[in-house]
Amino acid sequence: MGTARPIEIARLGEPRIASPLTLSTAIGDGIGNFVPDRARVRFQAEIGTGIDDPDLLFEKAGPRERLFFEPAKTRAAIATCGGLCPGLNNVIRSAVLELHHNYGVPEILGIRYGYQGLNPAAAHPPVALTPDFVEDIHKDGGSVLGSSRGPQPVQAMVDYLAAANIQVLLLVGGDGTQRGAHEIAAEIRKRKLAISVIGIPKTIDNDIMYVRRSFGFVTAIEEAKKVFDCAHNESKGVPYGIGLVKVMGRESGFIAAVATIASQEVNFCFVPEVTMRLDGAKGFLDVLKNRMLARNHAVIVVAEGAGQELMPSAPAETDASGNRKHQDIGVFLKQRIESYFEAERIPVSVKYIDPSYTIRSVAANSDDSLLCDSYARNAVHAAMAGKTDALIGFWNACFMHVPIAMAVESKSRVSPESDLWNGVIAATGQPRTWG
Amino acid sequence: MGTARPIEIARLGEPRIASPLTLSTAIGDGIGNFVPDRARVRFQAEIGTGIDDPDLLFEKAGPRERLFFEPAKTRAAIATCGGLCPGLNNVIRSAVLELHHNYGVPEILGIRYGYQGLNPAAAHPPVALTPDFVEDIHKDGGSVLGSSRGPQPVQAMVDYLAAANIQVLLLVGGDGTQRGAHEIAAEIRKRKLAISVIGIPKTIDNDIMYVRRSFGFVTAIEEAKKVFDCAHNESKGVPYGIGLVKVMGRESGFIAAVATIASQEVNFCFVPEVTMRLDGAKGFLDVLKNRMLARNHAVIVVAEGAGQELMPSAPAETDASGNRKHQDIGVFLKQRIESYFEAERIPVSVKYIDPSYTIRSVAANSDDSLLCDSYARNAVHAAMAGKTDALIGFWNACFMHVPIAMAVESKSRVSPESDLWNGVIAATGQPRTWG
Amino acid sequence: MGTARPIEIARLGEPRIASPLTLSTAIGDGIGNFVPDRARVRFQAEIGTGIDDPDLLFEKAGPRERLFFEPAKTRAAIATCGGLCPGLNNVIRSAVLELHHNYGVPEILGIRYGYQGLNPAAAHPPVALTPDFVEDIHKDGGSVLGSSRGPQPVQAMVDYLAAANIQVLLLVGGDGTQRGAHEIAAEIRKRKLAISVIGIPKTIDNDIMYVRRSFGFVTAIEEAKKVFDCAHNESKGVPYGIGLVKVMGRESGFIAAVATIASQEVNFCFVPEVTMRLDGAKGFLDVLKNRMLARNHAVIVVAEGAGQELMPSAPAETDASGNRKHQDIGVFLKQRIESYFEAERIPVSVKYIDPSYTIRSVAANSDDSLLCDSYARNAVHAAMAGKTDALIGFWNACFMHVPIAMAVESKSRVSPESDLWNGVIAATGQPRTWG
Amino acid sequence: MGTARPIEIARLGEPRIASPLTLSTAIGDGIGNFVPDRARVRFQAEIGTGIDDPDLLFEKAGPRERLFFEPAKTRAAIATCGGLCPGLNNVIRSAVLELHHNYGVPEILGIRYGYQGLNPAAAHPPVALTPDFVEDIHKDGGSVLGSSRGPQPVQAMVDYLAAANIQVLLLVGGDGTQRGAHEIAAEIRKRKLAISVIGIPKTIDNDIMYVRRSFGFVTAIEEAKKVFDCAHNESKGVPYGIGLVKVMGRESGFIAAVATIASQEVNFCFVPEVTMRLDGAKGFLDVLKNRMLARNHAVIVVAEGAGQELMPSAPAETDASGNRKHQDIGVFLKQRIESYFEAERIPVSVKYIDPSYTIRSVAANSDDSLLCDSYARNAVHAAMAGKTDALIGFWNACFMHVPIAMAVESKSRVSPESDLWNGVIAATGQPRTWG
Repeated sequence: MGTARPIEIARLGEPRIASPLTLSTAIGDGIGNFVPDRARVRFQAEIGTGIDDPDLLFEKAGPRERLFFEPAKTRAAIATCGGLCPGLNNVIRSAVLELHHNYGVPEILGIRYGYQGLNPAAAHPPVALTPDFVEDIHKDGGSVLGSSRGPQPVQAMVDYLAAANIQVLLLVGGDGTQRGAHEIAAEIRKRKLAISVIGIPKTIDNDIMYVRRSFGFVTAIEEAKKVFDCAHNESKGVPYGIGLVKVMGRESGFIAAVATIASQEVNFCFVPEVTMRLDGAKGFLDVLKNRMLARNHAVIVVAEGAGQELMPSAPAETDASGNRKHQDIGVFLKQRIESYFEAERIPVSVKYIDPSYTIRSVAANSDDSLLCDSYARNAVHAAMAGKTDALIGFWNACFMHVPIAMAVESKSRVSPESDLWNGVIAATGQPRTWG
Repeated sequence: MGTARPIEIARLGEPRIASPLTLSTAIGDGIGNFVPDRARVRFQAEIGTGIDDPDLLFEKAGPRERLFFEPAKTRAAIATCGGLCPGLNNVIRSAVLELHHNYGVPEILGIRYGYQGLNPAAAHPPVALTPDFVEDIHKDGGSVLGSSRGPQPVQAMVDYLAAANIQVLLLVGGDGTQRGAHEIAAEIRKRKLAISVIGIPKTIDNDIMYVRRSFGFVTAIEEAKKVFDCAHNESKGVPYGIGLVKVMGRESGFIAAVATIASQEVNFCFVPEVTMRLDGAKGFLDVLKNRMLARNHAVIVVAEGAGQELMPSAPAETDASGNRKHQDIGVFLKQRIESYFEAERIPVSVKYIDPSYTIRSVAANSDDSLLCDSYARNAVHAAMAGKTDALIGFWNACFMHVPIAMAVESKSRVSPESDLWNGVIAATGQPRTWG
Repeated sequence: MGTARPIEIARLGEPRIASPLTLSTAIGDGIGNFVPDRARVRFQAEIGTGIDDPDLLFEKAGPRERLFFEPAKTRAAIATCGGLCPGLNNVIRSAVLELHHNYGVPEILGIRYGYQGLNPAAAHPPVALTPDFVEDIHKDGGSVLGSSRGPQPVQAMVDYLAAANIQVLLLVGGDGTQRGAHEIAAEIRKRKLAISVIGIPKTIDNDIMYVRRSFGFVTAIEEAKKVFDCAHNESKGVPYGIGLVKVMGRESGFIAAVATIASQEVNFCFVPEVTMRLDGAKGFLDVLKNRMLARNHAVIVVAEGAGQELMPSAPAETDASGNRKHQDIGVFLKQRIESYFEAERIPVSVKYIDPSYTIRSVAANSDDSLLCDSYARNAVHAAMAGKTDALIGFWNACFMHVPIAMAVESKSRVSPESDLWNGVIAATGQPRTWG
Repeated sequence: MGTARPIEIARLGEPRIASPLTLSTAIGDGIGNFVPDRARVRFQAEIGTGIDDPDLLFEKAGPRERLFFEPAKTRAAIATCGGLCPGLNNVIRSAVLELHHNYGVPEILGIRYGYQGLNPAAAHPPVALTPDFVEDIHKDGGSVLGSSRGPQPVQAMVDYLAAANIQVLLLVGGDGTQRGAHEIAAEIRKRKLAISVIGIPKTIDNDIMYVRRSFGFVTAIEEAKKVFDCAHNESKGVPYGIGLVKVMGRESGFIAAVATIASQEVNFCFVPEVTMRLDGAKGFLDVLKNRMLARNHAVIVVAEGAGQELMPSAPAETDASGNRKHQDIGVFLKQRIESYFEAERIPVSVKYIDPSYTIRSVAANSDDSLLCDSYARNAVHAAMAGKTDALIGFWNACFMHVPIAMAVESKSRVSPESDLWNGVIAATGQPRTWG
């Protein structure tokens, strides 16, 4: 394996308890297998392209033959943090079913409203999660536990975990959440507590490192695509109609880019990763004018984090999750388009659509349902084996363990040199650069 | 039939041409029937309730044995006016197929962008509508002809109709459009031209008189209901979450009311027909506070025309269709809710959704597809028989001819004493009156 | 009202109890109204067509100011009988919510598996229906109570009703079920018991008299239409492809006819009401051959009760509901088409689809959800007022009371002279008669 | 890269023509990149699990800087073969758009009805594929070109390709089709013709080697899941109800297994890869009986190729594609269940559903639309660069070139030791082995 670098995962101690799962260690006996700790997932799949991924070897996720926690004496908890995302209830459900039916963990707490539920000061007591409670929850969007943005005091949360005698903590959330998970794990380590903290990546923007596809993303694409098709109909429904849609994507434009290719009705797609220029010859407004004169209508998709540099500077603000607050590029763009065409005396009609809440609160589709099931069960396996401070990654079709600190170092972005962006260029016919 | 009042329809002259349709005049021969001009649809169905409808008798719509226009020499035209609505393409398609295949009308013009296309000054020449052209258009939302709001000079339009040698003009639109249709018909009468003007009612608000159900309405309800369910998930997804959805309904709250019953997830529904009070004991904000304290979340639906009296007066404005422009009750309500709860120190999180464009630009569902087919074919029958200045109405499961002037006299409204509003009260549990 | 015939409804006795519903008897006070017993719904809406409906006056359904049963002492029960239909759970839910929240009825029993649950010999004890139990059931297809076909001994069922102290019995089912309901009501009358029996019409075929639209029908159409579109794709996907779909419709072809118009992709539609001829010049196989040679593909839709006369006679059989069992026209037609074209040496490929179970077991769409809500609440109103042996009818957009015996006298059929069938002829281009 | 084995791809000759694509060879200039021929995709991602994939290095697919064919003089053709699959029209569309807009290939032929269209004897002349022709085809299921099963004489097809002056042939189909493609490529090589043959893998069963996910698969899962939910409703809708669904999967049970996990409503799932036993203690019928007595209902999913060994032997038959014809396990199982429970005097009601045609003929969902776009564009890139006898593979999130002969050596199967099958066991609770 040459110079490939193995990535190690923290663990609470030696796993000595025999797993109750009815799996085998033999290949070829027709029985599903425990995953040995030595099993690795290679990160690098492309070689010789000039932009090859680093040659890393992650621990393969999956059920271990030996557990750190004795199931019958284990108390588990799960929380969902940050914005809604399709599939949260599927993750909760599969984690509960795996803990209860397969491991025999007797008690599972549902932490209410994200990190708030770990802070007794917020006064949201947990609910007991049972197979009956979760039976049908995957049919609904949202989260039965609720969620919230932003951190809570680490000391208070670890005090609570210790007092509530929780050994397994599953935290479903984005990079802000996972930074919090890492701090909790560090405090647990400092206090020498035996509590496993496992992160399940949740990002509707699909921008977490070492996570090829986060759950909810393809469901969001399906919904976004429907909206783009509506914007197309609106744009063609009036003289000089322009359909303008703002979608999620603070720092990464995956939703905008992928849904643009899926829809094939979009004429201009803007993402944070590609610089936007409005003015001047071959600037966007000029190109848009030419299209409007030639074709009478246009559909524009803009990720919320695109074009921030165009807007008058505002005091730096962050939301409760610590994300930089953006000025609203959608509203800004609508106004700029309208004033530009007014000056050009072309009577455009801009239909502006912001579908964010309706994209993220629907139930997961089938493909995401599967992904949720795997993320959740692998998180349970990792926790029961005593892994900690680890995120469940997904790469090269394998689930794997990623140190949380490593996963939150940076974010996935849409490379303007990628096949994905080539697909956007092909689908829209837009120029690669503006101005 | 006692004192029932028959409603007469204008006609261009005596119909003397034998219809080419393969129908019969005999009942019981197993062949579909021509509708005799004496056939009537009774408007009044309820008796003795205290609010009985007037006892009117409308002409039943349908194919006539005798035509006024000779099909082989007829040139027809169709235009779609006003905002988009699911089913416009179905209407266009069925009208074209009926004219072409069943009547043998050789040429059908698709007028572009509503009334603009009838005014040569706007320079939108018509397209030729053929069975090939319309083959698959019903699968898409929007209108292949485009639409526009607002009137055009009647003289110019009638000049165009005469010059283009158009005998049959089908106008798909709301009450503004139909008022225009009535003026066109009056001018045609004045000039003694033989041009039939037939209106097809289009109102996503379902508020045209003598039209029990306008096409596109149930499709819009289906879409609105999905949004309400999303708002419900959003409201439960955060501590003190409020989902606030604004839907269409300038003067009539049918979409808000009907989709509220369909969803069963809405807690408060506001329509223009019921006075809204925000302040004071038992005002909305007080009632909402009690709910938030008891249940932690709420879903609020507001029709765009509700609560206008609450907002600071603005100069009277109308849009291009002549509709009174409303201030945005959705944005206003969001702000009032946020400032109220800030003062009450309850940290609510309001998720505001305005889904109007995505509700109205989808393709018609099956039930609306049927309705479109019938409206379109009955409009063709009426026109070919020489009826004019008439709207296709739909009442007591029958299609019928309504003088346009009569149809635009007033609008359908949601009565707060109706079964419909009782259903809203039952579904939401909200009080009947505020404050 | 001339010679219009009022239709009287049986009642258990004088209603003397004041209704707890917060409605008024005054028109114009902005409060929803009690419906007076004198309020009538006129059946006849068309006049002078030659096939005018009879001039009947039904009691308008709705909440009565005076009740026969004292809510606090009333025990209600509901059962779903016969085949599945979209909306059963919505009906159950709305009945429970109306009884519990609006009337204050303390106990509502859910009878399991249709009439079986009323016969203690079948050993299916009822479940207690509470607002919590029914909260989310409308999101699922099927029936949470289960259903079954066929009668049970009337004596045993009335014994059970009396022993279980049930005063209100709501029976959701088709004409077989309603015949049973009528027998139960007759036995109750004979025994002088104070038990109200109210029928809610359930027929996915939409063939119950005095019921313009039964719940679940438009949902079924939506699903059937999707299947027809699939059959269209299948037929075009191979050389000489034929898509053949069998849909429900034992004696009435409404699903086949309506979904054919909704789809616009069907080339031949067969219903029980129109005689089918396969052989000979201008018989179906001959016409089909001409189409296959001209266009290479075809879509055929056949209602299960069509063409029964074509099949070799089998011993008369009935299913458990007493419906005449049909031989399978779909399979028969597939074989006849295949053998015919084999003889003609045209290599057709017939794709046969029978989607019945997937059409009837989906959740109700929005439009059906509304209908279910109204049927259920009106049934509760009728029962609480002491009406009995009555079916909730729906005509001219009004809900009304129909004596069950009158409703089951015959069935609605697709008239080959109707607008509906004209729409099928227009959509398919098929001849009106065969052979 | 140690002992990793590079897999070489046949090519027609040295590519010397500069590509017209506006891509760059520099990394970091913000412009999408040509893919160098040395770029490789590593097949092996898992290491140390005991069942590691072989360490192969495939050529990475993508646009090449140098082409073999001069676009302006190239004539391309595309055919779709075998059964329908969601996404065929998307593949056709993206291939046409890439050839026409990006490469400037002036003429693209749509071969009708699969291999039949390459054999003049079948008399299906090709259609000209233009951007206008393909504009909206991706919105429909099926294939606008039609398809057919089975081979045609290789000599005749190569004669046709040469005579029609076709240089680029894209063949969309399963392993039978790809075997044919390999034979065509061999004959072309023998005749020293300069015709590139590139395969695009199409298998709704997702069972082609080196293809992690074939297009249409997740769409099929979504549809299958809906059917399973219907079967669940049907099973609960009657006393002792059993919903039995047969899905596609001749030799590989991916659809059955994946949709079972997605649905979470299935109790028993049978695939060809796991031996089925019906009789005896702990045989399926015995286990089913226990479930029926405990829970009253069950949902069973069976792949068409499962349990073949259970059925009375029939003469070996193959369909036109050369696939072994299966006896109908669905019908067989239905009969065995019914006779077993009749003997046990338990009155089960089996609802049997075969949704194959409706699963495979719907339009592709968003996620599949993307996949189709990439498969098609990469096939065009490969062909223009002069690669031949190659299939577009997809592994570790990369598209790559696979020698067709290598791809058709065997099939992907569901391993009973895989995470996938573990997911099925967890979702159903069924035993790992029968009897």
